[in-house]
Amino acid sequence: MALRYVGTEASKMRRNSYTKNSSYQRGVIDAAKLHIQSAIAKKLQPENFATLDAFSIADLGCSVGPNTFFSVQNILEAVKLKYKIHESNTRILEFQVFFNDHSMNDFNTLFKYLPPYREFCASGVPGSFYSRLLLRASLHFVHSSYSLHWLSQVPKEVTNRKEEITKAYLSQHAMDMANFLSARAEEVVPGGLMTIVVPGLIDEEKVDSFNIPAYCTRPQELEAVIQKNECFTIESIEFALSDGTGHSPWAPRCIFQHKSHYSGINKGTFWW
Amino acid sequence: MALRYVGTEASKMRRNSYTKNSSYQRGVIDAAKLHIQSAIAKKLQPENFATLDAFSIADLGCSVGPNTFFSVQNILEAVKLKYKIHESNTRILEFQVFFNDHSMNDFNTLFKYLPPYREFCASGVPGSFYSRLLLRASLHFVHSSYSLHWLSQVPKEVTNRKEEITKAYLSQHAMDMANFLSARAEEVVPGGLMTIVVPGLIDEEKVDSFNIPAYCTRPQELEAVIQKNECFTIESIEFALSDGTGHSPWAPRCIFQHKSHYSGINKGTFWW
Repeated sequence: MALRYVGTEASKMRRNSYTKNSSYQRGVIDAAKLHIQSAIAKKLQPENFATLDAFSIADLGCSVGPNTFFSVQNILEAVKLKYKIHESNTRILEFQVFFNDHSMNDFNTLFKYLPPYREFCASGVPGSFYSRLLLRASLHFVHSSYSLHWLSQVPKEVTNRKEEITKAYLSQHAMDMANFLSARAEEVVPGGLMTIVVPGLIDEEKVDSFNIPAYCTRPQELEAVIQKNECFTIESIEFALSDGTGHSPWAPRCIFQHKSHYSGINKGTFWW
Repeated sequence: MALRYVGTEASKMRRNSYTKNSSYQRGVIDAAKLHIQSAIAKKLQPENFATLDAFSIADLGCSVGPNTFFSVQNILEAVKLKYKIHESNTRILEFQVFFNDHSMNDFNTLFKYLPPYREFCASGVPGSFYSRLLLRASLHFVHSSYSLHWLSQVPKEVTNRKEEITKAYLSQHAMDMANFLSARAEEVVPGGLMTIVVPGLIDEEKVDSFNIPAYCTRPQELEAVIQKNECFTIESIEFALSDGTGHSPWAPRCIFQHKSHYSGINKGTFWW
Protein backbone atom coordinates (compact mmCIF):
# COMPACT_ATOMS: atom_id res chain seq x y z
CA MET A 1 0.00 0.00 0.00
CA ALA A 2 1.37 3.41 -0.97
CA LEU A 3 1.30 5.93 1.86
CA ARG A 4 0.17 9.41 0.93
CA TYR A 5 0.79 12.26 3.28
CA VAL A 6 -1.27 15.37 3.82
CA GLY A 7 -0.70 18.33 6.13
CA THR A 8 0.48 21.89 6.47
CA GLU A 9 3.98 23.05 5.60
CA ALA A 10 4.84 23.33 9.28
CA SER A 11 3.75 19.81 10.00
CA LYS A 12 5.58 18.58 6.91
CA MET A 13 8.74 20.14 8.32
CA ARG A 14 8.16 18.38 11.63
CA ARG A 15 7.65 15.14 9.77
CA ASN A 16 10.84 15.60 7.78
CA SER A 17 12.69 16.31 11.00
CA TYR A 18 11.26 13.17 12.61
CA THR A 19 11.98 11.07 9.54
CA LYS A 20 15.60 12.20 9.60
CA ASN A 21 15.93 11.43 13.27
CA SER A 22 14.19 8.07 13.09
CA SER A 23 16.05 6.45 10.20
CA TYR A 24 17.91 4.22 12.65
CA GLN A 25 14.60 3.00 14.14
CA ARG A 26 13.38 2.40 10.57
CA GLY A 27 16.39 0.12 10.06
CA VAL A 28 15.39 -1.77 13.21
CA ILE A 29 11.85 -2.18 11.87
CA ASP A 30 13.07 -3.45 8.51
CA ALA A 31 15.40 -5.90 10.22
CA ALA A 32 12.54 -7.22 12.38
CA LYS A 33 10.14 -7.58 9.43
CA LEU A 34 10.86 -11.21 8.49
CA HIS A 35 11.04 -12.13 12.16
CA ILE A 36 7.48 -10.86 12.73
CA GLN A 37 6.14 -12.39 9.52
CA SER A 38 7.57 -15.75 10.50
CA ALA A 39 6.10 -15.58 14.02
CA ILE A 40 2.63 -14.79 12.66
CA ALA A 41 2.83 -17.57 10.08
CA LYS A 42 3.98 -20.18 12.59
CA LYS A 43 2.38 -19.21 15.89
CA LEU A 44 -0.90 -17.45 15.22
CA GLN A 45 -3.89 -19.78 15.35
CA PRO A 46 -6.98 -17.85 14.26
CA GLU A 47 -9.21 -20.87 14.86
CA ASN A 48 -8.65 -20.41 18.61
CA PHE A 49 -9.92 -16.83 18.64
CA ALA A 50 -13.51 -16.01 19.53
CA THR A 51 -14.10 -14.27 16.21
CA LEU A 52 -12.56 -14.60 12.77
CA ASP A 53 -13.67 -11.25 11.38
CA ALA A 54 -11.86 -8.77 13.64
CA PHE A 55 -8.19 -8.43 14.54
CA SER A 56 -6.82 -5.80 16.90
CA ILE A 57 -3.23 -4.58 16.88
CA ALA A 58 -1.52 -2.19 19.32
CA ASP A 59 1.73 -0.36 18.65
CA LEU A 60 3.04 0.75 22.04
CA GLY A 61 5.33 3.78 21.92
CA CYS A 62 4.33 4.71 18.38
CA SER A 63 5.66 8.31 18.34
CA VAL A 64 4.32 10.44 15.45
CA GLY A 65 5.04 8.24 12.42
CA PRO A 66 5.87 7.21 9.79
CA ASN A 67 7.75 4.21 11.28
CA THR A 68 4.67 3.02 13.15
CA PHE A 69 2.75 2.82 9.84
CA PHE A 70 5.45 0.60 8.30
CA SER A 71 5.35 -1.71 11.32
CA VAL A 72 1.57 -1.91 11.29
CA GLN A 73 1.41 -2.57 7.55
CA ASN A 74 3.94 -5.37 7.93
CA ILE A 75 1.89 -7.03 10.69
CA LEU A 76 -1.33 -6.50 8.78
CA GLU A 77 -0.06 -8.14 5.57
CA ALA A 78 1.23 -11.15 7.49
CA VAL A 79 -2.08 -11.57 9.34
CA LYS A 80 -4.10 -11.28 6.12
CA LEU A 81 -1.95 -14.00 4.58
CA LYS A 82 -2.45 -16.23 7.61
CA TYR A 83 -6.22 -15.74 7.60
CA LYS A 84 -6.38 -16.36 3.86
CA ILE A 85 -4.76 -19.73 4.38
CA HIS A 86 -7.15 -20.52 7.20
CA GLU A 87 -9.87 -22.36 5.28
CA SER A 88 -12.90 -21.80 7.49
CA ASN A 89 -12.75 -18.01 7.25
CA THR A 90 -15.55 -16.81 5.00
CA ARG A 91 -16.10 -13.37 6.49
CA ILE A 92 -14.19 -10.21 5.65
CA LEU A 93 -11.45 -9.54 8.17
CA GLU A 94 -11.43 -6.05 9.69
CA PHE A 95 -8.48 -4.51 11.56
CA GLN A 96 -8.41 -2.13 14.49
CA VAL A 97 -5.07 -0.48 15.20
CA PHE A 98 -4.40 1.28 18.50
CA PHE A 99 -1.49 3.73 18.31
CA ASN A 100 -0.23 4.30 21.83
CA ASP A 101 2.24 6.71 23.34
CA HIS A 102 2.38 8.91 26.44
CA SER A 103 -0.23 11.64 26.64
CA MET A 104 2.25 14.40 25.72
CA ASN A 105 3.01 12.72 22.38
CA ASP A 106 1.99 14.76 19.33
CA PHE A 107 -1.07 12.76 18.30
CA ASN A 108 -2.21 15.61 16.04
CA THR A 109 0.81 15.02 13.81
CA LEU A 110 0.35 11.25 13.96
CA PHE A 111 -3.26 11.58 12.85
CA LYS A 112 -2.39 13.99 10.03
CA TYR A 113 0.01 11.47 8.52
CA LEU A 114 -2.27 8.45 8.78
CA PRO A 115 -2.46 6.74 5.39
CA PRO A 116 -5.71 8.16 3.95
CA TYR A 117 -6.64 4.91 2.22
CA ARG A 118 -5.80 2.61 5.08
CA GLU A 119 -7.02 -0.91 5.63
CA PHE A 120 -7.67 -0.44 9.33
CA CYS A 121 -9.68 1.53 11.84
CA ALA A 122 -7.21 3.93 13.46
CA SER A 123 -7.29 4.98 17.06
CA GLY A 124 -4.88 6.91 19.33
CA VAL A 125 -4.43 5.77 22.90
CA PRO A 126 -2.71 8.23 25.25
CA GLY A 127 -1.06 6.90 28.40
CA SER A 128 1.78 4.88 29.88
CA PHE A 129 2.16 1.33 28.61
CA TYR A 130 3.32 0.38 32.10
CA SER A 131 -0.34 0.25 33.10
CA ARG A 132 -3.61 -0.89 31.54
CA LEU A 133 -4.61 0.96 28.38
CA LEU A 134 -7.30 -1.13 26.74
CA LEU A 135 -10.14 -3.53 27.46
CA ARG A 136 -9.30 -6.97 28.79
CA ALA A 137 -8.79 -9.70 26.19
CA SER A 138 -9.13 -7.21 23.33
CA LEU A 139 -5.77 -7.41 21.53
CA HIS A 140 -4.51 -10.05 19.09
CA PHE A 141 -1.08 -8.58 18.39
CA VAL A 142 1.06 -6.20 20.43
CA HIS A 143 4.10 -4.52 18.92
CA SER A 144 6.65 -2.31 20.62
CA SER A 145 9.86 -1.19 18.95
CA TYR A 146 12.54 0.86 20.69
CA SER A 147 10.26 2.10 23.47
CA LEU A 148 10.65 -0.25 26.42
CA HIS A 149 14.04 1.14 27.36
CA TRP A 150 12.23 4.28 28.54
CA LEU A 151 11.57 3.80 32.22
CA SER A 152 8.42 5.05 33.93
CA GLN A 153 10.62 7.35 36.05
CA VAL A 154 14.21 8.04 37.09
CA PRO A 155 14.84 5.66 39.99
CA LYS A 156 14.33 7.40 43.31
CA GLU A 157 17.32 5.73 44.91
CA VAL A 158 19.88 7.31 42.58
CA THR A 159 22.92 8.56 44.45
CA ASN A 160 26.42 9.51 43.41
CA ARG A 161 27.80 5.98 43.72
CA LYS A 162 28.03 4.34 40.32
CA GLU A 163 27.37 0.87 41.65
CA GLU A 164 24.14 1.94 43.32
CA ILE A 165 23.03 3.88 40.26
CA THR A 166 23.35 0.84 38.02
CA LYS A 167 21.47 -1.31 40.54
CA ALA A 168 18.69 1.27 40.89
CA TYR A 169 18.20 1.51 37.12
CA LEU A 170 18.13 -2.27 36.73
CA SER A 171 15.63 -2.54 39.57
CA GLN A 172 13.38 0.15 38.02
CA HIS A 173 13.59 -1.57 34.64
CA ALA A 174 12.62 -4.94 36.15
CA MET A 175 9.67 -3.37 37.97
CA ASP A 176 8.52 -1.51 34.83
CA MET A 177 8.79 -4.63 32.68
CA ALA A 178 6.81 -6.62 35.25
CA ASN A 179 4.05 -4.00 35.13
CA PHE A 180 4.18 -3.95 31.32
CA LEU A 181 3.77 -7.73 31.08
CA SER A 182 0.98 -7.82 33.68
CA ALA A 183 -0.97 -5.11 31.86
CA ARG A 184 -0.57 -6.89 28.50
CA ALA A 185 -1.56 -10.21 30.06
CA GLU A 186 -4.93 -8.61 30.81
CA GLU A 187 -5.34 -7.05 27.37
CA VAL A 188 -4.11 -9.74 24.99
CA VAL A 189 -6.43 -12.58 24.00
CA PRO A 190 -5.28 -16.12 24.82
CA GLY A 191 -3.05 -17.20 21.93
CA GLY A 192 -2.34 -13.61 20.91
CA LEU A 193 1.21 -12.55 20.03
CA MET A 194 3.48 -9.80 21.27
CA THR A 195 6.77 -8.65 19.79
CA ILE A 196 9.17 -6.23 21.40
CA VAL A 197 12.46 -4.77 20.22
CA VAL A 198 14.62 -2.90 22.73
CA PRO A 199 18.06 -1.35 22.38
CA GLY A 200 20.91 -3.33 23.90
CA LEU A 201 23.19 -2.05 26.63
CA ILE A 202 25.01 1.18 25.93
CA ASP A 203 28.00 2.45 27.86
CA GLU A 204 27.06 2.59 31.53
CA GLU A 205 28.78 5.96 31.80
CA LYS A 206 26.05 7.44 29.63
CA VAL A 207 23.31 6.34 32.03
CA ASP A 208 25.42 7.72 34.86
CA SER A 209 26.10 11.10 33.34
CA PHE A 210 22.83 11.96 31.62
CA ASN A 211 20.54 10.76 34.40
CA ILE A 212 17.74 10.10 31.90
CA PRO A 213 14.89 7.67 32.62
CA ALA A 214 16.15 4.99 30.22
CA TYR A 215 17.79 1.62 30.64
CA CYS A 216 19.30 -0.52 27.90
CA THR A 217 19.24 -4.09 29.01
CA ARG A 218 21.74 -6.97 29.05
CA PRO A 219 20.58 -10.27 27.49
CA GLN A 220 20.49 -12.19 30.78
CA GLU A 221 18.62 -9.37 32.55
CA LEU A 222 15.94 -9.29 29.89
CA GLU A 223 15.45 -13.05 29.95
CA ALA A 224 15.21 -13.08 33.74
CA VAL A 225 12.50 -10.40 33.76
CA ILE A 226 10.48 -12.15 31.08
CA GLN A 227 10.71 -15.57 32.65
CA LYS A 228 9.37 -14.24 35.94
CA ASN A 229 6.09 -13.45 34.23
CA GLU A 230 3.90 -16.52 33.99
CA CYS A 231 1.33 -15.29 31.48
CA PHE A 232 3.41 -15.44 28.29
CA THR A 233 5.64 -18.04 26.72
CA ILE A 234 8.83 -16.86 25.01
CA GLU A 235 8.56 -18.07 21.43
CA SER A 236 11.85 -16.62 20.32
CA ILE A 237 14.48 -14.24 21.59
CA GLU A 238 17.26 -13.01 19.35
CA PHE A 239 20.25 -10.91 20.26
CA ALA A 240 21.31 -9.65 16.87
CA LEU A 241 22.75 -6.50 15.38
CA SER A 242 19.75 -4.27 15.21
CA ASP A 243 19.63 -2.87 11.69
CA GLY A 244 21.69 -5.32 9.65
CA THR A 245 24.32 -2.69 8.82
CA GLY A 246 26.91 -3.96 11.25
CA HIS A 247 27.38 -0.45 12.61
CA SER A 248 24.65 -0.57 15.22
CA PRO A 249 24.48 -1.95 18.75
CA TRP A 250 22.57 -5.18 19.23
CA ALA A 251 18.84 -5.01 19.80
CA PRO A 252 17.05 -7.96 21.36
CA ARG A 253 13.92 -9.02 19.46
CA CYS A 254 11.45 -11.07 21.48
CA ILE A 255 8.28 -12.82 20.41
CA PHE A 256 5.81 -13.82 23.14
CA GLN A 257 2.60 -15.78 23.02
CA HIS A 258 -0.16 -15.35 25.54
CA LYS A 259 -0.81 -18.65 27.27
CA SER A 260 -4.10 -20.20 26.23
CA HIS A 261 -4.97 -21.36 29.72
CA TYR A 262 -4.27 -18.03 31.38
CA SER A 263 -7.25 -17.05 33.49
CA GLY A 264 -6.15 -13.55 34.43
CA ILE A 265 -9.06 -12.10 32.51
CA ASN A 266 -11.36 -13.27 35.30
CA LYS A 267 -9.33 -11.79 38.11
CA GLY A 268 -10.78 -8.31 37.82
CA THR A 269 -7.52 -6.53 38.50
CA PHE A 270 -8.38 -3.44 36.47
CA TRP A 271 -7.63 -0.06 37.93
CA TRP A 272 -10.97 0.86 39.42
CA MET B 1 -16.14 11.77 39.74
CA ALA B 2 -14.11 14.94 40.15
CA LEU B 3 -12.26 15.97 37.00
CA ARG B 4 -8.72 17.18 37.52
CA TYR B 5 -6.98 19.01 34.73
CA VAL B 6 -3.32 19.10 33.89
CA GLY B 7 -1.43 20.91 31.14
CA THR B 8 0.69 23.87 30.20
CA GLU B 9 -0.37 27.47 30.65
CA ALA B 10 -0.96 27.81 26.91
CA SER B 11 -3.19 24.78 26.78
CA LYS B 12 -5.03 26.00 29.88
CA MET B 13 -5.75 29.24 28.04
CA ARG B 14 -7.08 27.30 25.07
CA ARG B 15 -9.23 25.25 27.39
CA ASN B 16 -10.60 28.36 29.09
CA SER B 17 -11.39 29.80 25.71
CA TYR B 18 -13.16 26.63 24.65
CA THR B 19 -15.04 26.40 27.94
CA LYS B 20 -16.31 29.97 27.47
CA ASN B 21 -17.40 29.27 23.94
CA SER B 22 -19.02 25.96 24.71
CA SER B 23 -21.22 26.89 27.67
CA TYR B 24 -24.28 26.76 25.41
CA GLN B 25 -23.39 23.19 24.35
CA ARG B 26 -22.91 22.35 28.03
CA GLY B 27 -26.48 23.52 28.63
CA VAL B 28 -27.61 21.20 25.85
CA ILE B 29 -25.77 18.28 27.48
CA ASP B 30 -27.28 19.00 30.89
CA ALA B 31 -30.75 19.21 29.37
CA ALA B 32 -30.27 15.85 27.63
CA LYS B 33 -28.92 14.12 30.74
CA LEU B 34 -32.19 12.73 32.13
CA HIS B 35 -33.29 11.81 28.63
CA ILE B 36 -30.20 9.62 28.15
CA GLN B 37 -30.41 8.11 31.63
CA SER B 38 -34.02 7.16 31.02
CA ALA B 39 -33.24 5.59 27.62
CA ILE B 40 -30.47 3.46 29.11
CA ALA B 41 -32.64 2.35 32.03
CA LYS B 42 -35.58 1.43 29.82
CA LYS B 43 -34.10 0.24 26.54
CA LEU B 44 -30.69 -1.28 27.20
CA GLN B 45 -30.81 -5.04 27.62
CA PRO B 46 -27.33 -6.25 28.65
CA GLU B 47 -28.50 -9.88 28.63
CA ASN B 48 -28.71 -9.67 24.83
CA PHE B 49 -25.10 -8.61 24.39
CA ALA B 50 -22.37 -11.16 23.67
CA THR B 51 -20.41 -10.16 26.75
CA LEU B 52 -21.34 -8.64 30.09
CA ASP B 53 -17.90 -7.38 31.06
CA ALA B 54 -17.14 -4.81 28.37
CA PHE B 55 -19.10 -1.79 27.18
CA SER B 56 -17.96 0.51 24.37
CA ILE B 57 -19.11 4.09 23.96
CA ALA B 58 -18.36 6.52 21.10
CA ASP B 59 -18.77 10.29 21.27
CA LEU B 60 -18.90 11.50 17.68
CA GLY B 61 -17.81 15.12 17.20
CA CYS B 62 -16.21 15.33 20.66
CA SER B 63 -14.11 18.50 20.10
CA VAL B 64 -11.41 19.07 22.77
CA GLY B 65 -13.41 18.79 25.99
CA PRO B 66 -14.52 19.22 28.69
CA ASN B 67 -18.14 18.79 27.50
CA THR B 68 -17.41 15.37 26.04
CA PHE B 69 -16.21 14.17 29.47
CA PHE B 70 -19.47 15.25 31.11
CA SER B 71 -21.48 13.41 28.44
CA VAL B 72 -19.41 10.26 28.77
CA GLN B 73 -19.59 10.30 32.58
CA ASN B 74 -23.37 10.64 32.41
CA ILE B 75 -23.67 7.66 30.05
CA LEU B 76 -21.21 5.63 32.10
CA GLU B 77 -23.06 6.17 35.39
CA ALA B 78 -26.37 5.18 33.82
CA VAL B 79 -24.87 2.03 32.28
CA LYS B 80 -23.23 1.01 35.57
CA LEU B 81 -26.58 1.37 37.32
CA LYS B 82 -28.28 -0.74 34.67
CA TYR B 83 -25.65 -3.48 34.86
CA LYS B 84 -25.82 -3.45 38.67
CA ILE B 85 -29.51 -4.19 38.51
CA HIS B 86 -28.90 -6.95 36.01
CA GLU B 87 -28.63 -9.92 38.38
CA SER B 88 -26.57 -12.36 36.35
CA ASN B 89 -23.59 -10.00 36.01
CA THR B 90 -20.81 -11.21 38.27
CA ARG B 91 -17.83 -9.88 36.34
CA ILE B 92 -16.34 -6.42 36.60
CA LEU B 93 -17.61 -4.16 33.83
CA GLU B 94 -14.92 -2.34 31.85
CA PHE B 95 -15.57 0.65 29.60
CA GLN B 96 -13.90 1.68 26.35
CA VAL B 97 -14.60 5.23 25.19
CA PHE B 98 -13.82 6.33 21.64
CA PHE B 99 -13.56 10.11 21.28
CA ASN B 100 -14.10 10.96 17.62
CA ASP B 101 -13.72 14.14 15.64
CA HIS B 102 -12.26 15.09 12.25
CA SER B 103 -8.53 14.56 11.86
CA MET B 104 -7.72 18.29 12.22
CA ASN B 105 -9.29 18.38 15.69
CA ASP B 106 -6.85 19.18 18.50
CA PHE B 107 -6.57 15.71 20.02
CA ASN B 108 -3.45 16.76 21.93
CA THR B 109 -5.55 19.14 24.00
CA LEU B 110 -8.32 16.57 24.40
CA PHE B 111 -5.83 14.02 25.73
CA LYS B 112 -4.23 16.53 28.11
CA TYR B 113 -7.57 17.17 29.76
CA LEU B 114 -8.65 13.56 30.10
CA PRO B 115 -9.66 12.88 33.70
CA PRO B 116 -6.50 11.29 35.16
CA TYR B 117 -8.42 8.89 37.39
CA ARG B 118 -10.98 7.83 34.82
CA GLU B 119 -13.14 4.75 34.84
CA PHE B 120 -12.63 3.98 31.17
CA CYS B 121 -10.02 3.17 28.56
CA ALA B 122 -9.68 6.31 26.44
CA SER B 123 -9.04 6.36 22.74
CA GLY B 124 -9.09 9.10 20.08
CA VAL B 125 -10.51 8.31 16.66
CA PRO B 126 -9.72 10.80 13.88
CA GLY B 127 -11.98 10.90 10.84
CA SER B 128 -15.38 11.81 9.45
CA PHE B 129 -18.37 10.24 11.17
CA TYR B 130 -20.05 10.14 7.77
CA SER B 131 -18.06 6.98 7.06
CA ARG B 132 -16.93 3.91 8.99
CA LEU B 133 -14.64 4.60 11.93
CA LEU B 134 -14.61 1.46 14.04
CA LEU B 135 -14.91 -2.31 13.86
CA ARG B 136 -18.25 -3.81 12.97
CA ALA B 137 -20.57 -4.62 15.88
CA SER B 138 -18.18 -3.06 18.38
CA LEU B 139 -20.20 -0.23 19.95
CA HIS B 140 -22.89 -0.41 22.63
CA PHE B 141 -23.69 3.28 22.87
CA VAL B 142 -23.18 6.10 20.37
CA HIS B 143 -23.53 9.73 21.41
CA SER B 144 -23.39 12.83 19.24
CA SER B 145 -24.27 16.29 20.50
CA TYR B 146 -24.33 19.39 18.32
CA SER B 147 -22.17 17.90 15.57
CA LEU B 148 -24.48 16.43 12.94
CA HIS B 149 -25.45 19.85 11.58
CA TRP B 150 -21.92 20.04 10.12
CA LEU B 151 -22.18 18.72 6.58
CA SER B 152 -19.44 16.67 4.96
CA GLN B 153 -19.02 19.46 2.40
CA VAL B 154 -20.66 22.60 0.99
CA PRO B 155 -23.14 21.31 -1.59
CA LYS B 156 -21.64 21.44 -5.06
CA GLU B 157 -24.86 22.66 -6.66
CA VAL B 158 -24.95 25.95 -4.75
CA THR B 159 -25.84 28.87 -7.01
CA ASN B 160 -27.05 32.38 -6.36
CA ARG B 161 -30.74 31.43 -6.30
CA LYS B 162 -31.96 31.17 -2.72
CA GLU B 163 -34.48 28.42 -3.50
CA GLU B 164 -31.82 26.20 -5.06
CA ILE B 165 -29.39 26.85 -2.21
CA THR B 166 -31.88 25.66 0.40
CA LYS B 167 -32.68 22.57 -1.66
CA ALA B 168 -28.99 21.75 -2.16
CA TYR B 169 -28.26 22.04 1.57
CA LEU B 170 -31.24 19.85 2.49
CA SER B 171 -30.17 17.29 -0.10
CA GLN B 172 -26.57 17.24 1.22
CA HIS B 173 -27.86 16.89 4.79
CA ALA B 174 -30.09 13.95 3.82
CA MET B 175 -27.20 12.23 2.03
CA ASP B 176 -24.82 12.82 4.95
CA MET B 177 -27.34 11.53 7.48
CA ALA B 178 -27.94 8.43 5.37
CA ASN B 179 -24.19 7.75 5.32
CA PHE B 180 -23.98 8.41 9.06
CA LEU B 181 -26.76 5.93 9.86
CA SER B 182 -25.36 3.27 7.50
CA ALA B 183 -21.91 3.52 9.08
CA ARG B 184 -23.34 3.28 12.60
CA ALA B 185 -25.53 0.35 11.60
CA GLU B 186 -22.31 -1.54 10.88
CA GLU B 187 -20.58 -0.48 14.08
CA VAL B 188 -23.30 -0.72 16.72
CA VAL B 189 -24.14 -4.10 18.26
CA PRO B 190 -27.72 -5.34 17.84
CA GLY B 191 -29.72 -3.79 20.69
CA GLY B 192 -27.16 -0.98 21.15
CA LEU B 193 -28.36 2.60 21.63
CA MET B 194 -27.57 5.86 19.85
CA THR B 195 -28.50 9.36 20.93
CA ILE B 196 -28.08 12.48 18.84
CA VAL B 197 -28.78 16.13 19.56
CA VAL B 198 -28.71 18.59 16.67
CA PRO B 199 -29.48 22.31 16.55
CA GLY B 200 -32.84 23.24 15.09
CA LEU B 201 -33.33 25.45 12.04
CA ILE B 202 -31.71 28.85 12.17
CA ASP B 203 -32.57 31.72 9.86
CA GLU B 204 -32.16 30.55 6.28
CA GLU B 205 -30.50 33.85 5.42
CA LYS B 206 -27.53 32.83 7.55
CA VAL B 207 -26.96 29.69 5.53
CA ASP B 208 -27.31 31.75 2.39
CA SER B 209 -24.89 34.48 3.38
CA PHE B 210 -22.13 32.56 5.19
CA ASN B 211 -21.97 29.65 2.80
CA ILE B 212 -20.72 27.37 5.57
CA PRO B 213 -21.06 23.57 5.41
CA ALA B 214 -23.78 23.36 8.05
CA TYR B 215 -27.50 22.68 7.98
CA CYS B 216 -29.93 23.03 10.88
CA THR B 217 -32.83 20.75 10.26
CA ARG B 218 -36.61 21.10 10.45
CA PRO B 219 -38.46 18.43 12.54
CA GLN B 220 -40.18 16.79 9.58
CA GLU B 221 -36.93 16.68 7.56
CA LEU B 222 -35.09 14.92 10.37
CA GLU B 223 -37.85 12.37 10.86
CA ALA B 224 -37.98 11.63 7.13
CA VAL B 225 -34.23 10.99 6.96
CA ILE B 226 -34.25 8.72 10.00
CA GLN B 227 -37.27 6.70 8.88
CA LYS B 228 -35.62 5.96 5.54
CA ASN B 229 -32.93 4.02 7.36
CA GLU B 230 -34.09 0.53 8.20
CA CYS B 231 -31.42 -0.49 10.68
CA PHE B 232 -32.55 1.55 13.70
CA THR B 233 -35.85 2.04 15.46
CA ILE B 234 -36.65 5.53 16.76
CA GLU B 235 -37.24 5.10 20.47
CA SER B 236 -37.95 8.74 21.13
CA ILE B 237 -37.64 12.06 19.37
CA GLU B 238 -38.18 15.32 21.21
CA PHE B 239 -38.32 18.82 19.78
CA ALA B 240 -37.71 20.86 22.90
CA LEU B 241 -35.92 24.05 23.84
CA SER B 242 -32.34 22.96 23.91
CA ASP B 243 -30.90 24.18 27.19
CA GLY B 244 -33.92 24.68 29.39
CA THR B 245 -33.35 28.44 29.70
CA GLY B 246 -36.07 29.44 27.29
CA HIS B 247 -33.63 31.67 25.42
CA SER B 248 -32.29 29.06 23.04
CA PRO B 249 -33.52 27.62 19.74
CA TRP B 250 -35.01 24.15 19.86
CA ALA B 251 -32.71 21.17 19.54
CA PRO B 252 -34.13 17.79 18.53
CA ARG B 253 -33.02 14.95 20.80
CA CYS B 254 -33.33 11.49 19.27
CA ILE B 255 -32.79 8.07 20.79
CA PHE B 256 -32.32 5.14 18.41
CA GLN B 257 -31.98 1.45 19.01
CA HIS B 258 -30.18 -0.88 16.66
CA LYS B 259 -32.58 -3.58 15.44
CA SER B 260 -31.80 -6.98 16.93
CA HIS B 261 -32.46 -8.83 13.73
CA TYR B 262 -30.30 -6.58 11.56
CA SER B 263 -27.90 -8.73 9.57
CA GLY B 264 -25.79 -5.95 8.07
CA ILE B 265 -22.79 -7.18 10.04
CA ASN B 266 -22.55 -10.10 7.64
CA LYS B 267 -22.71 -8.04 4.49
CA GLY B 268 -19.06 -7.09 4.41
CA THR B 269 -19.61 -3.55 3.21
CA PHE B 270 -16.48 -2.15 4.83
CA TRP B 271 -14.27 0.16 2.84
CA TRP B 272 -11.69 -2.20 1.45
